[in-house]
Amino acid sequence: MKGDSSSGLAIETRPKSRSGKRVGGSRRIRELTRLVERLGITNTASVDWHLLDLALTHPSSSSLANYQQLEFVGDAVVRLAASELLLETYPQAPVGDFAAIRSILVSDRVLAEFAESYGMDQFLLMAGSAAKNKAGARSRLADAFEAVLGALYLSTHSMSLVRPWLDPILKEKADQIRQDPARQNYKDALQEWTQAHYKVLPQYQVEETGQGYDDPERFTAYVWLKDHFLSQGKGRSKKAAQQAAAQAAYQQLSK
Amino acid sequence: MKGDSSSGLAIETRPKSRSGKRVGGSRRIRELTRLVERLGITNTASVDWHLLDLALTHPSSSSLANYQQLEFVGDAVVRLAASELLLETYPQAPVGDFAAIRSILVSDRVLAEFAESYGMDQFLLMAGSAAKNKAGARSRLADAFEAVLGALYLSTHSMSLVRPWLDPILKEKADQIRQDPARQNYKDALQEWTQAHYKVLPQYQVEETGQGYDDPERFTAYVWLKDHFLSQGKGRSKKAAQQAAAQAAYQQLSK
Repeated sequence: MKGDSSSGLAIETRPKSRSGKRVGGSRRIRELTRLVERLGITNTASVDWHLLDLALTHPSSSSLANYQQLEFVGDAVVRLAASELLLETYPQAPVGDFAAIRSILVSDRVLAEFAESYGMDQFLLMAGSAAKNKAGARSRLADAFEAVLGALYLSTHSMSLVRPWLDPILKEKADQIRQDPARQNYKDALQEWTQAHYKVLPQYQVEETGQGYDDPERFTAYVWLKDHFLSQGKGRSKKAAQQAAAQAAYQQLSK
Repeated sequence: MKGDSSSGLAIETRPKSRSGKRVGGSRRIRELTRLVERLGITNTASVDWHLLDLALTHPSSSSLANYQQLEFVGDAVVRLAASELLLETYPQAPVGDFAAIRSILVSDRVLAEFAESYGMDQFLLMAGSAAKNKAGARSRLADAFEAVLGALYLSTHSMSLVRPWLDPILKEKADQIRQDPARQNYKDALQEWTQAHYKVLPQYQVEETGQGYDDPERFTAYVWLKDHFLSQGKGRSKKAAQQAAAQAAYQQLSK
């Protein structure tokens, strides 16, 4: 049903990178071994090094053989790992809470944080021009993290190389989210909640209502679900006002 | 790291259903065995019957022990199974296409169709009042289907009870979607595509522009991405007009 670890994937045919440097050489393998050791993976014999190499190759380094396909799989891997972990760890929590916490666990912000904690940026092959794009750093790291999960999952077609090291960091983060809701991204949480319960997205509207740049209540955001007004919030930026509105709405709905 | 198949889950404590009938008895097991046989699962010894029973218990039948937690896991299971299948089957397809096809494969519409093809509604325990809600039939079936996937996945903590029968039906549907784009739900496809590429949702606006009830161009829908106008479409209903607008936008963007 599955064939071997990577049969048929486009990512198997490995062209040289644009720079002409052959990736996947023995120096690269030594590098990747360091990362795998950092993750605490002991069963290194099952790691598909070719996939792991791809997972840490940014599209700017190779337009054909890069992390995009693995990221697509990894996105589903982290979602499943988070689902299992939440169910095992908080068996009594309402399903709506699971969905909200999961949406935060799999967000770019959190995944980039995880990637950073393992220093994954050091292992990511990319063109210098891409590296200069600081604004894109978060999504780059999150993408690479998902791709690494995809590579490890596809190495064995199971969670055996993933959950032993991912579970503890997911659990730590989930505990933080539950204990200190202020760490949450309430816009994501509200969106996940309304989709789970009503299959619609909340709608926001923002107005400038305050006294200019320094006013902590410069913007007011309003949030609706279909035609039903949910809540409002204020903030120094449009984003902060939306988060405040989402927080009020989320806390009200999830009661 | 994982414990046994369902340790710690709230779904393990099994109250009687509201009707007082003890679910999970030997008659129920015989019923569920029939379903498992229909799915073509031969390795029935690994099936966790208790979880499968829960997966086919609607919240109207038991407010405490029902399919909701398993549906949460199953949602991630089908997403991962579809990701792997698409990557293995169409190794050369652009990642944006994968995302669009996956969004259709995991949609309520398609999952309910799968559930129906196995006659899963016959096995779903629910209160008569809920069964009368015909409008909710699709999401009920899709939910139960996801929950069954969750139960089978958690039975072994692997895809071994899932992919052998799910892969062929996912592949058949994926082929249909690729061959006949008209079968697609373009609103879902467009949303998945814009989220994957720009992390934003498309926005729609609909106006009544036609000549009343029978006019096939009664409504005109306009679709935007941020402030960028993408496309428009016409239809007899608001929904049809939005689908037409989404189709035009999707075909334009995914070129």
